[in-house]
Amino acid sequence: MADKAYSGYLNPKYVPRADLIAAFYLEPAAKVPFEEAAQAVASESSIGTWTPLSTLSKKMKRKLHARVFSLNKRTGIIKIAYPLALFEKGNIPQLLSSVAGNVFGMKEVKNLKLLDINFPNRYIRSFKGPRFGIQGVRHILKVKKRPLLGTIVKPKLGLNERQHAQVALQAWLGGCDLVKDDENLTSMRFNKFEKRVRQTLRLRDKAEKISGERKAYMPNVTAPFSEMMRRAKFVKSLGCEYAMVDIVSVGWSALQDLRDADLGLILHAHRAGHAAFTRNPRHGISMLLIAKLCRLIGFDQLHVGAIVGKMHGGKREVKAIGEEIEDTIIHKGKGHVLSENWLNIKPVLAVCSGGLHPGKIPELVKAMGNDIVIQMGGGVHGHPFGTRHGAIAARQALEATMKGIPLKYATMKHFELAIALRKWG
Amino acid sequence: MADKAYSGYLNPKYVPRADLIAAFYLEPAAKVPFEEAAQAVASESSIGTWTPLSTLSKKMKRKLHARVFSLNKRTGIIKIAYPLALFEKGNIPQLLSSVAGNVFGMKEVKNLKLLDINFPNRYIRSFKGPRFGIQGVRHILKVKKRPLLGTIVKPKLGLNERQHAQVALQAWLGGCDLVKDDENLTSMRFNKFEKRVRQTLRLRDKAEKISGERKAYMPNVTAPFSEMMRRAKFVKSLGCEYAMVDIVSVGWSALQDLRDADLGLILHAHRAGHAAFTRNPRHGISMLLIAKLCRLIGFDQLHVGAIVGKMHGGKREVKAIGEEIEDTIIHKGKGHVLSENWLNIKPVLAVCSGGLHPGKIPELVKAMGNDIVIQMGGGVHGHPFGTRHGAIAARQALEATMKGIPLKYATMKHFELAIALRKWG
Repeated sequence: MADKAYSGYLNPKYVPRADLIAAFYLEPAAKVPFEEAAQAVASESSIGTWTPLSTLSKKMKRKLHARVFSLNKRTGIIKIAYPLALFEKGNIPQLLSSVAGNVFGMKEVKNLKLLDINFPNRYIRSFKGPRFGIQGVRHILKVKKRPLLGTIVKPKLGLNERQHAQVALQAWLGGCDLVKDDENLTSMRFNKFEKRVRQTLRLRDKAEKISGERKAYMPNVTAPFSEMMRRAKFVKSLGCEYAMVDIVSVGWSALQDLRDADLGLILHAHRAGHAAFTRNPRHGISMLLIAKLCRLIGFDQLHVGAIVGKMHGGKREVKAIGEEIEDTIIHKGKGHVLSENWLNIKPVLAVCSGGLHPGKIPELVKAMGNDIVIQMGGGVHGHPFGTRHGAIAARQALEATMKGIPLKYATMKHFELAIALRKWG
Repeated sequence: MADKAYSGYLNPKYVPRADLIAAFYLEPAAKVPFEEAAQAVASESSIGTWTPLSTLSKKMKRKLHARVFSLNKRTGIIKIAYPLALFEKGNIPQLLSSVAGNVFGMKEVKNLKLLDINFPNRYIRSFKGPRFGIQGVRHILKVKKRPLLGTIVKPKLGLNERQHAQVALQAWLGGCDLVKDDENLTSMRFNKFEKRVRQTLRLRDKAEKISGERKAYMPNVTAPFSEMMRRAKFVKSLGCEYAMVDIVSVGWSALQDLRDADLGLILHAHRAGHAAFTRNPRHGISMLLIAKLCRLIGFDQLHVGAIVGKMHGGKREVKAIGEEIEDTIIHKGKGHVLSENWLNIKPVLAVCSGGLHPGKIPELVKAMGNDIVIQMGGGVHGHPFGTRHGAIAARQALEATMKGIPLKYATMKHFELAIALRKWG
């Protein structure tokens, strides 16, 4: 029965033109031939189901069915071309319900990972992309060339509003450009959103006056939609430049509206929770694709991993994600499964975060380039002399790296950095 | 270093009271002791990070840190108690960013699955739960005891508005109570949302007149938030009782607002995409927990699997999910890792869907009880004589099952059912 329902979805001679193309890694279930599992995926993610239908005409099928046009049993990679008519433009949830929907649960597959999507021009044009992008962020922060330096107020939770603002102040005065809330800090009993934002922005102004540099705060507005929007508008009304959101926990529908509301805020995307479905190399959805969706929708900054930190994520993968969100033309290979042409969609600033400390800055900048935010929480607040000295050490490491000075030489002039490196090597 | 940062998060003597409790399956990374990995999870999901912090006071830590209070190396299951102050009430994205956030990506763990959460009373009370629930839905549809019978218009995509409405009409006339859009059908070039809803509701009225039964249509409003709300309000204005949403693709922030808007629509949750993170038994998030979140937020109907269909999902798991959303007191065991007291949160109607046909109804009802929607797409439209006869066959199988008549006897009186069983056995 299955054979009949899924037949016709394989066509190795097909040459995609304006189609949307998805690349999957596929392991069929026991006793299911690879070709059949591949066709089952193409069927279920376009117009078919497990049994032939009285209501599906041949003409309809010819016009709308997806086609497996590339299939490699050795690598497990299949490529499927989807007619663009299968997708509602500008609707990310609909896209995901199609190509990242039922397919993961089908009995015909044992493992299935959506690795990449190539979006055709007409689909890309239905999205705005980032309002600011890398250049916009640099312009606002008046930092032309070097990576931005950021920290997360730590501990994640526990500080009250006043303490939070004080920690932020110390980080800014030490040399951080950006200070953000952590992913689970929203509006707590002991640290209310409005009060925290007011107090932290007041000390941001103070930090700007003292340092003579631009400083920015990224408050976490993660919440049910209308509360999230209320908080975003509130921070904007106080002269805050940023809103940060936990993109995975919040979800695509609300993220699109947050962007489309065009509040004039730089949007910072934290990816907490992504590894529930991105980490397994054989099943789920790739972080590369999540990053592409963030660029399409229009986040200005996105966490991509740290290469060298506390989180899982190899150098090749993190580099590929960085390129995907920062370059205009993407070529296949080196972690990119499919090519992409981003047209006039602005580049997103990659945020490297998770277990970083000053000693890791040279390697990070070498791998990722200057267009990144180097963000360290523990690596700043864990400094034996406290937050301010931790931020000073990080800035020292960054300035030395920009001048090409090895950190071991920089420590001769900079005792804060020397202390940090003694602690973390 | 890691030892020091994570120490103090294990306390087997701790007895949770008003804490929120999470159960995880845990496999530590190579060379990481089980206890250390467990503490790393408790730390990262509450107030800690990879290195000790100058900014974290002892008092703060005592008050707010999570505690691994149960740990079983053999089964891999750990239980963590979180002080309730770590969570913002009524904010599901914040909850997930905490307990289902960074933890999945930590280097200390190889695999980690969030199996279950026990929500304390005070947390549960910050949510509305379903507006209608099982009794509300039964009241509106005037079906007192038997399972509801539903179908999905098939093919998923391809029909225009008129054809879509016609297929729905045939399904209703054959005996379906409910007809729904498929998960990837929103507003397409060839099938526009407004036009489809208008035409389908017109034929619903016709079906009600002819059949003398209540009939309902579940249009898919999956979209970016404001468009989703516009569509939901539109269907309500036309006298539609339902809105259906792809919960995973849409995301929690928008789902909470859809519920809280209290539009007076029965909310139907399709779970397309869940298997990207629920299917692997060793990593990700359990479907049981997703179901609990849907009940908390307040969906009235939720896809739970079919036990016997095209999708992955064992009998024990699907039964446990059904109980979790339909019972008030949940005991540990039989697929439930933790207990729960749902207080006055209404029960959610379980929807069984995915590869069903009339022949599977007796087994399904035996396993799941009467409080379900039996939903079949291919199992109706794949009938050799078409949709109407397919729906007739399904209704015949359902009525026979309710009377305790084996289907093989029912086929003697009902040729539509006989044809269906000959095809699908």
